[in-house]
Amino acid sequence: MIPRYTPREFLELWSDDTRYQTWLTVELAATEAMEKAGLVPAGTASAIRAQSLTLSAARIDEIERTTRHDVIAFLTHVEELAGEPARWLHRGLTSSDVLDTSLALLLTRATDAISQRAEALIAALAARAKEHAKTPMIGRSHGIHAEPVTFGVALAGHLAEVKRAAQRVKAARAEVAVGKLAGAVGTYAHLTPQLEAEALSALGLTPETVATQVVARDRHAALFSAFALLAAAIERLATNVRHWQRTEVAEAEERFSQGQKGSSAMPHKRNPVLSENLCGLARVVRAAVTPALENIALWHERDISHSSVERMLAPDVTATLGFMLERATQVVEGLVVYPEALARNLAKSGGLYFSEGVMLELVGAGLPRQRAYELVQRSAMRAWSGEGEFRVLLGADPDVTAHLGPEVLDRCFDLSHTLRHAELLVQRAIEA
Amino acid sequence: MIPRYTPREFLELWSDDTRYQTWLTVELAATEAMEKAGLVPAGTASAIRAQSLTLSAARIDEIERTTRHDVIAFLTHVEELAGEPARWLHRGLTSSDVLDTSLALLLTRATDAISQRAEALIAALAARAKEHAKTPMIGRSHGIHAEPVTFGVALAGHLAEVKRAAQRVKAARAEVAVGKLAGAVGTYAHLTPQLEAEALSALGLTPETVATQVVARDRHAALFSAFALLAAAIERLATNVRHWQRTEVAEAEERFSQGQKGSSAMPHKRNPVLSENLCGLARVVRAAVTPALENIALWHERDISHSSVERMLAPDVTATLGFMLERATQVVEGLVVYPEALARNLAKSGGLYFSEGVMLELVGAGLPRQRAYELVQRSAMRAWSGEGEFRVLLGADPDVTAHLGPEVLDRCFDLSHTLRHAELLVQRAIEA
Amino acid sequence: MIPRYTPREFLELWSDDTRYQTWLTVELAATEAMEKAGLVPAGTASAIRAQSLTLSAARIDEIERTTRHDVIAFLTHVEELAGEPARWLHRGLTSSDVLDTSLALLLTRATDAISQRAEALIAALAARAKEHAKTPMIGRSHGIHAEPVTFGVALAGHLAEVKRAAQRVKAARAEVAVGKLAGAVGTYAHLTPQLEAEALSALGLTPETVATQVVARDRHAALFSAFALLAAAIERLATNVRHWQRTEVAEAEERFSQGQKGSSAMPHKRNPVLSENLCGLARVVRAAVTPALENIALWHERDISHSSVERMLAPDVTATLGFMLERATQVVEGLVVYPEALARNLAKSGGLYFSEGVMLELVGAGLPRQRAYELVQRSAMRAWSGEGEFRVLLGADPDVTAHLGPEVLDRCFDLSHTLRHAELLVQRAIEA
Amino acid sequence: MIPRYTPREFLELWSDDTRYQTWLTVELAATEAMEKAGLVPAGTASAIRAQSLTLSAARIDEIERTTRHDVIAFLTHVEELAGEPARWLHRGLTSSDVLDTSLALLLTRATDAISQRAEALIAALAARAKEHAKTPMIGRSHGIHAEPVTFGVALAGHLAEVKRAAQRVKAARAEVAVGKLAGAVGTYAHLTPQLEAEALSALGLTPETVATQVVARDRHAALFSAFALLAAAIERLATNVRHWQRTEVAEAEERFSQGQKGSSAMPHKRNPVLSENLCGLARVVRAAVTPALENIALWHERDISHSSVERMLAPDVTATLGFMLERATQVVEGLVVYPEALARNLAKSGGLYFSEGVMLELVGAGLPRQRAYELVQRSAMRAWSGEGEFRVLLGADPDVTAHLGPEVLDRCFDLSHTLRHAELLVQRAIEA
Repeated sequence: MIPRYTPREFLELWSDDTRYQTWLTVELAATEAMEKAGLVPAGTASAIRAQSLTLSAARIDEIERTTRHDVIAFLTHVEELAGEPARWLHRGLTSSDVLDTSLALLLTRATDAISQRAEALIAALAARAKEHAKTPMIGRSHGIHAEPVTFGVALAGHLAEVKRAAQRVKAARAEVAVGKLAGAVGTYAHLTPQLEAEALSALGLTPETVATQVVARDRHAALFSAFALLAAAIERLATNVRHWQRTEVAEAEERFSQGQKGSSAMPHKRNPVLSENLCGLARVVRAAVTPALENIALWHERDISHSSVERMLAPDVTATLGFMLERATQVVEGLVVYPEALARNLAKSGGLYFSEGVMLELVGAGLPRQRAYELVQRSAMRAWSGEGEFRVLLGADPDVTAHLGPEVLDRCFDLSHTLRHAELLVQRAIEA
Repeated sequence: MIPRYTPREFLELWSDDTRYQTWLTVELAATEAMEKAGLVPAGTASAIRAQSLTLSAARIDEIERTTRHDVIAFLTHVEELAGEPARWLHRGLTSSDVLDTSLALLLTRATDAISQRAEALIAALAARAKEHAKTPMIGRSHGIHAEPVTFGVALAGHLAEVKRAAQRVKAARAEVAVGKLAGAVGTYAHLTPQLEAEALSALGLTPETVATQVVARDRHAALFSAFALLAAAIERLATNVRHWQRTEVAEAEERFSQGQKGSSAMPHKRNPVLSENLCGLARVVRAAVTPALENIALWHERDISHSSVERMLAPDVTATLGFMLERATQVVEGLVVYPEALARNLAKSGGLYFSEGVMLELVGAGLPRQRAYELVQRSAMRAWSGEGEFRVLLGADPDVTAHLGPEVLDRCFDLSHTLRHAELLVQRAIEA
Repeated sequence: MIPRYTPREFLELWSDDTRYQTWLTVELAATEAMEKAGLVPAGTASAIRAQSLTLSAARIDEIERTTRHDVIAFLTHVEELAGEPARWLHRGLTSSDVLDTSLALLLTRATDAISQRAEALIAALAARAKEHAKTPMIGRSHGIHAEPVTFGVALAGHLAEVKRAAQRVKAARAEVAVGKLAGAVGTYAHLTPQLEAEALSALGLTPETVATQVVARDRHAALFSAFALLAAAIERLATNVRHWQRTEVAEAEERFSQGQKGSSAMPHKRNPVLSENLCGLARVVRAAVTPALENIALWHERDISHSSVERMLAPDVTATLGFMLERATQVVEGLVVYPEALARNLAKSGGLYFSEGVMLELVGAGLPRQRAYELVQRSAMRAWSGEGEFRVLLGADPDVTAHLGPEVLDRCFDLSHTLRHAELLVQRAIEA
Repeated sequence: MIPRYTPREFLELWSDDTRYQTWLTVELAATEAMEKAGLVPAGTASAIRAQSLTLSAARIDEIERTTRHDVIAFLTHVEELAGEPARWLHRGLTSSDVLDTSLALLLTRATDAISQRAEALIAALAARAKEHAKTPMIGRSHGIHAEPVTFGVALAGHLAEVKRAAQRVKAARAEVAVGKLAGAVGTYAHLTPQLEAEALSALGLTPETVATQVVARDRHAALFSAFALLAAAIERLATNVRHWQRTEVAEAEERFSQGQKGSSAMPHKRNPVLSENLCGLARVVRAAVTPALENIALWHERDISHSSVERMLAPDVTATLGFMLERATQVVEGLVVYPEALARNLAKSGGLYFSEGVMLELVGAGLPRQRAYELVQRSAMRAWSGEGEFRVLLGADPDVTAHLGPEVLDRCFDLSHTLRHAELLVQRAIEA
C-alpha cells in the first residue's frame, strides 16, 4: 500500500488500529458465546464493551518486542486497560482463532469495498456502451482492420467481462467469509462447534468445515485469483483505451484536465497515462496469485509461512484493486470519443471489410468456396495496393459480375445491415 | 503433455484427430442451424454426416504449409473428401467461431475427465478419513508437537479442501462451456443470434454474451485458476504424506510395491516419491495461471497471441492435473498407516499438549491469564528439558496444586475428551 | 514440446534415445576415471565402448515398469547388452550422479543451440539497423507522437537488448555446466574429488562446489531466468512489429508469403501473426521461471519434486525459445519497411515534436522555464486542434518573436540536426 | 515496505525526501556537464548547490495535484526555492532522464545494502560450517535417512549457494548502474553523448547503449531475477532449519530468547517462526520477477506502465530481501545445534546407510551388480523391519560371508572413512 495508489477507505481498513479493534471484536463475540455455554462468567463481554477501550497500537508493539508474539501482546494490553474481566478473554482459543477470524472480517470488508467500486465501473461502462451503441467503428483483429463494430459494442464486451469478474469476486467472498474458533489444532479441545457457530454467526461468518490450526488457505488463494481476474478485465479495457488514443488512431482519449501537463519536453502531448498506469497495476495484482497459491501447502496442522505473505499482499492487492476500479471508472466516464475519427478510420479500408458478404453471395450463387475466396481476394489485394476502390473493382471484374448484379453488391456494402445486432449486444451485456 | 504424466484419455482428447473431428462437429452443428434459417440448402449437414468422413491430420498439415492458415486447410481437406455439399460449410463464420467453440467442447470434456478423477480422490479420502476418524495422532504446528488430532481429522481437512477445489472446477466449467458463432468481429454480420443459440445448444454450450472475434479469455483464465487451486490442494496433501513418511516420523507411508527399488545405492530406502512428484507437478499446473491471465488483454477485437499459449498449456495442464488426481488417489488408497507409530510419537511430548487445559482450569480457578500461563510454562519447560514428566511436575508444584486438585488434573490429561469431536469433523467433511 | 513450436534439433536433443545415450556417456566417463583410480578393472569402459551399444528406450521403459526406478532400469538394460564389463558401471555412484551430470550435458547443448540462434537474430537486427540508420521515423511515447528517431535506432535498441540477453544466457550456461559424481549425499563416500574432477573435465563440465544428492537447483533457475529475459527481449521486438504493422500505422510489416491466407473471412488482411505468436510464446517461456525458483528449496539432501518440473519444462522452454529465435530472425530479415509511410506519419505531427527545441531557445533567450513552456504549449495546442501549422503559429506569436528571430526558429525545425547522432547509436549497439 | 519487514536503511533510501534529493543530484550533475559544454551558464550548478536546498516533498505533492506531472512539480518547487539559476536546470532533458538516472542511483544503493547483508550471512554460514565440519549427521533424501554427512557440510552447501546468489546480485548491479541523459526519445536531440557520459560518470553510472525514452527494462528485470534467486537460497536454508527443528528430528533450533512466547495456548512450544517467516518472504520476493519481466515490452519508445510496478515493487523487494538477509544471519548465528540429537538420529538407521559400501565390496568380489543389490537389500529389509541389526544380519548371511570376511565388513561400517572429505567440502565452499 503506497499512498499514491491507496484509497482512504483501504488505508483505514488495513491500519493497525482497525486490526486490533477487529481482534477485540472477535474476542468479545467468542466470549459472549462462551458466556451462553457457561464457560465464562455472564456479563464479561458486556463489561468490557462498556469500557469502550481505545487500544494503543504503539503499546501493543512495545509489549510484542518482549513477547515476540502479537496476540499475547494484544491480550496483555487489553488486560492492562480492562482489568479483571479481561482475563476471561481468549479462553480455550488459539491465536489463529482470533487472527483468522479477524482476517475474514477484514477481507470481506475489503472485498465489499472492491465490489462497490466494481459496480461503479459497471455502471459507467453500461452508460457509455448505451451512448455509443450505434456509433460505427472499424473492428480490428491483429491490429488490422477487420469488419465494422460499434464503439458501444466494444465497450459492451468490456462491460460483460467486468461483470463476470465482479461476480467471481462475490463468489470468492463467500469462500473467505469463514472464521474459526476451534482451538490449537481445530479439534474444539476446550470449545464446542456450537459455540463457534454462534460466535461466528454474530460476526456474519460461517465456520471452517475442518480447520487445522488455521482456516484453510485455498480460500484466500481463490479470492486473490478472483482479484487478478478483475484486474485483468481492467487491463484489457485500459489496453484498448491506449490503442484508441494513439496518435494514428485517435478515436477516443482520456479526459485531459485543465493544468495537466503531458510531458516536460513536449507540451502538445496528451498521453493515456491513466490507462498505462492501470496496465502496470494489473501486473502487481496478478503477481499476488502465485504466492497465495504457494501459501496453501502449509505443513501438518499449519506453519506460519503464509502470514508474512498475507501481511504484505492482502493490503497491497485490495487497495491497489480498489484504486484501479476508481481510476478505471474515471477513465470510462471521462473518455472523450471522437465519432468523426471513428468514421474516418472506418473509411480507410475502402469497404474491404465487406469482402466476406461478397464472398458469401458468390458461394450462394453457386461458386466453390475457395473460388469465391480467390475472386474476392483478387479485388481486395488490388484495392489494398491502391489500384482502385474495392466496390468499383468488384463491379468491374467479369468473373464477379457474371454471378452478382449491382444491386446485390450494393446490399453487401450496407453498413447499417452489418451492424443491425449492435444494440442487442449492448443490451445483452447490460442484462447479463 | 509428456507420456509419463499423461493418462490415455487426455492423450486422445488432445490429439490432432480429435481436434479436427471436433471442428467438423462444430461446422455441422452450425450448418444445421443455418439450414433451418434458410441460409444453406436443407440436408447439407446430413449429407456430409452420412459420409462418415475420416479426416487426415497429415493431409491438413500439408495443406496448411501452403495456406499458413489451419482452418482454411481443414476446410479445403473437408471439401476434398465431401465434395459439393462441403462448400456450404463455414458460411458466414470466421475461423475463431470454429476454433473457440471447439476449444469449449474440448476443455469441457477435459474438465469432466478431471472432475471424474477428483470424485475418485474424494471417495478415497472420505474412506480413509472415516477409517481413521478415531486414530489419535499428535497435531503439529510449525513442525512442533501441538495438541492431539486424529489421523482421520487430518485427512478430513484434505477432503474438505479437495471438495472445495472440485467445486470450483465445476463452477469454472460453466464459464468455458461457451461457444461463439458470431462472425469475424462478433456482430453476426452474416449470421443471427438465434442461429448461434440453436447450434451451440445442440453442442451443449451457451453463446458468449458479447464476443469480439473470439470468446473472452477471462473464461479460460478462470478455469486455469481453478485447476491451480485443485493442484494446490493435492500439493498440501502430498506435502503431508512426505512429512508422515520421513524416517523420524514414520506414521504413514506410500505403499511400496513388490519389485520396486527405492534407490540404486541404498536398498533399504522407501521414499515418498509419488508424493514428491505430486508436489513438483503442482508447480507446473500453477505456472499456467499467469500466462492464462496475460492472455486476457488481447488487442481490439482480438490478437492471436493467446493461441500458442493455449496450444501448449491446455493439454499440458489438464493432462497433468488428471494424472495428479489419479496418482493422489492411488497414494491415499494405498497409504499404509502405522497406529503404533502414531501412538509412539504422541507419547513423546509427555502430555505437554494438555498444558492448555491445565491453564484454562487455573484461569477458571481465578488466576490471571498471564500468571496461569507462567505456572504451566514452568513445568512445561522443565518437562521439555527432561527433568520429569509433565503431569508429575504439575502435581508437585504447590502454586498449581493450591488451585487444582489431582482429579481436576487427571481430567485435563484425558485424550478421549480432547478428541471427542473428531468423528463429527470427519462427518462434516464428508457431508460438505 | 509440441511439434509446431519445436525445431528438429531440440526434438532430437530431448528424445529418450539421446537421454539414455547421454547417461551411458556419463557412466563411461566415470568408469574411465575409476579405472585410473584403480577402483575398476582397466579397460572396462573401452570394452563397453567397443560394442557401440544401441540402447532401446522401449526396453528400458519395460524394465522400469517393474523396478519403478529409471536408472536401475537403464543399468539393467546395459548389462543385458554389454554383459560382464557392465557390472562395473555406476560403481559408488548414485542415480543423481548420472542424471544431473547428464542434465548438465543436455542443458548446455540446448543452451548452445539457443545461443547460436540468438547470434542469427543479432546479425539480422544489426543488418536491418544499419540499413535504416538514417530512415526517419516518429518516436512515440505512450503511443503518442513524440520526437523523431530513425527506424534503425529503434532496431538498434532491440539489438542492444537481445545482445544483453544473449550474454546473460552465456553467463548462465557456465552455471549449469556443472556435474556431480559424489555419491549418495555428495560426500564422495565411495569416490574421490579427484576422480570426479577428472571425469567431469572429460565431459566439459566442472564439479559442484558442495553437492547434496544433487547439483544445486539455483543453477538451473538462473538459466531459466536468463531464458525468460531473452524471451522478453523478443516480446518487446514482436510487440513493436505489431504496432508498426497495424492498419493506421503501416510503417512496416511481416513478409507475406505467396499462397498465405490472412483470414478465412477477410481476404485482404495481412496480419502480424508471427509477432503475435512470439508474444504468446514469451508468456510460456516466462512461466517457467517461478517453478524453477520453487524447485530450489529441496528438503535436506534432496527430494525429487524438482524432477517432474524439469522433465516437462526443460524441453519445452529450450525448444520454444529456440523456435522463437528462429521465428524472430525470420521476422526481422523479412520485415518490409515502408519509408513513405514513415515519412507520412512523421509529417502528421506538423512539426510539434520540434517544440522542445523552441522552448530551449526561449529559455536560452532569458525566459523562465515555465513561461517558455506555456508559450510553446499555446501554439502547440492550437496546432493540435487544427488551427494552423505549428511553425507558422509560433512565427505569428509576438510573445515568441520578441525573443526568437525566424532563422532561429528555422534551425529548431531542422530534422537532420535532430537525428545527427542516429548512426552513432546504431554503431554503439553493433559494437556493444 | 511494511515497517515489520523493513530495515531502517531501506526506509530512508526509499523515502520521498531521498527521492527528490536524488533527482536534484542528477539535475545538478547534468547541469555541470552542460556548463562544460557551454549549453548553460558556468556556475549554475554550484550556485544552486551553495544554497543547500531543503526540498519539501509535501510542497511538490501539492504542485503535482495541479500539474499531474511529478518532475514538472519538482522543478517548479526547485525554482521556487533556488530562484533564477534554477531555470537552467533540466535543459534538453526529458523527465525520464532524471527519473531513470535517479532510479539507477537508488537501485544500486539498495543493491549495495543487500550485498553488504549478504556478506554477513556468508560470514555466519562460513563460521558455523567450519565449527561443525566434522559433526556427523544423517543425510536424508526424500526425507528418508540416506548416508551420513556432517552438519558443517550441510551448511557449506547453503554457503556455496548463497555465495553464488550474492555473486549474481553483484553482476546484476552492473546492469542497472546505467543512467540516461539523452532526451525525449534517446537521440540526444538537444544534448550530446559526451555530455551524458560525463554527467553519468560523475554519478558512478554508465550510459544506456541505446535508450528509448527510458533505460531498457530488461536491466531491472535481471536485477529482480537475481534478487529472487538470493531469496530462494535463503528459502532453502530456512526450510532445512524448519526440518532440523521439528519435534521428531530436534537436531538444531532457532535461538529462543528470554521472554519469548511460542504460543498463546501451548507454553512448551519453541517454533522455528523466523525460518517460516523467511519462507513466506521468499514467496513475496519471487513474486516480483514476473511483473518485472512483463515490464520489459514497453510500446514504441516507451509507455509508462512499468512505473507503477516499480514504485510498488522496488522498495518492497529490496527492503524485504534486506530484512531476510538480516534475519537469516541472525538464525544462522543463533542456531543451537544438538550433537547428541544428531548422533541419536544417525544411530537410528542401524548402519543401513553403509549398505552401499557392502554392495560395492560384493561387486568388487565378483558378483553381478543386481545380485549384490539383492543380497544387501535382503538384510536391509530385515533390519528395517526390526528383525536384527544390519551388520549382524549381513555377517550371518552365508551368501554374503562367502564373499566378504568380517574385517571387510567392519571397514564398510567405518563412519570416519565415510566422512573423510567433509572438511575439504567445507573448505571448498569457503574458498569458492
